[in-house]
Amino acid sequence: MLPEALARLVEQLSRLPTVGPKTAQRLALHVLRMPEEEVRQLAQALVEAKAKVRPCSVCFHLTDTDPCPICTNPGRDPSVLCVVEDSRDVLAIERAREFRGRYHVLGGAISPLDGVGPEDLRIRELLERLRGGQIREVIVATNPRVEGDATALYLARLIRPLGIRVTRLAHGLPVGGDLEYADEVTLARALEGRRDL
Amino acid sequence: MLPEALARLVEQLSRLPTVGPKTAQRLALHVLRMPEEEVRQLAQALVEAKAKVRPCSVCFHLTDTDPCPICTNPGRDPSVLCVVEDSRDVLAIERAREFRGRYHVLGGAISPLDGVGPEDLRIRELLERLRGGQIREVIVATNPRVEGDATALYLARLIRPLGIRVTRLAHGLPVGGDLEYADEVTLARALEGRRDL
Repeated sequence: MLPEALARLVEQLSRLPTVGPKTAQRLALHVLRMPEEEVRQLAQALVEAKAKVRPCSVCFHLTDTDPCPICTNPGRDPSVLCVVEDSRDVLAIERAREFRGRYHVLGGAISPLDGVGPEDLRIRELLERLRGGQIREVIVATNPRVEGDATALYLARLIRPLGIRVTRLAHGLPVGGDLEYADEVTLARALEGRRDL
Repeated sequence: MLPEALARLVEQLSRLPTVGPKTAQRLALHVLRMPEEEVRQLAQALVEAKAKVRPCSVCFHLTDTDPCPICTNPGRDPSVLCVVEDSRDVLAIERAREFRGRYHVLGGAISPLDGVGPEDLRIRELLERLRGGQIREVIVATNPRVEGDATALYLARLIRPLGIRVTRLAHGLPVGGDLEYADEVTLARALEGRRDL
């Protein structure tokens, strides 16, 4: 029913996350309306990003130079390490412009149900970095979910014996949020972590 | 903050419809995790679809042969023409497997607010086809919205004088839908168009 070249494009697009068959069709039809030059640029951007971007050999954040600009930036504090699941989390924390230390990207969280154990994450590499002796504090910024919490506890048990402080991001109400709509667990944690005014 | 090749890919992806900046970033990071071969296939599918797929010179449905397989199919009734806004509508009607005539894709609907007038649509081409004399009925299947309805009325006024029957798709309750959740306009139309059992 669809011309073959179009069907192939729809099929390829529908393999992407968040893209169902209807969206894939819509995107493919949009591509046909784009100027040829733009389509070529998009195709090239795909191939080039895949070819050039690699995990940093120190922190495993995505980069096109190795080590990455964060690891080589002399203005960043080498004594504080923020451990995250994923490169997306590095980007989110960088957007907050609050953290001036360095990162370590685990590549996921421990999740027995998905068959992800500690050996599948970059925990060995993390411990090697900590053995360097420069790091005083590890902030575990894994996602505030069961898997992220389990990973944080696991890491804390490994790291504390090395004499390094291990911290976790605070739980509480999101800024600008509505108390009425907060779920009970978040609210309980917000009460628990209350501060003096 | 993002490696340049990745930032460029995010930028390119975020130009696509339904893809906001967050989704673009998610898609780009997914691309980095895809095998290189798959990324190349996706890039190639983009370029090839753009290069090979063109509007049919008869009905303006997208095709990689000209005229398209529907226009050249001898099993389809050449006396009934279904007029739609868009190639997507052809695909939707074909999926219903009910219509055995041919199509004419207008390329949109009349919408003064968006600066789309009758001269921007393939109405001249439609009238030319009708002058061929083979067509007995035109089913106007523009979208059941203000613009689609206006376009249908406009076309009816042009086509009726040629002695050709002009029809419009029925309005009513969607099959499997819930009466309770139907909007009042649809419900009014469903009553108006009621049929004897």
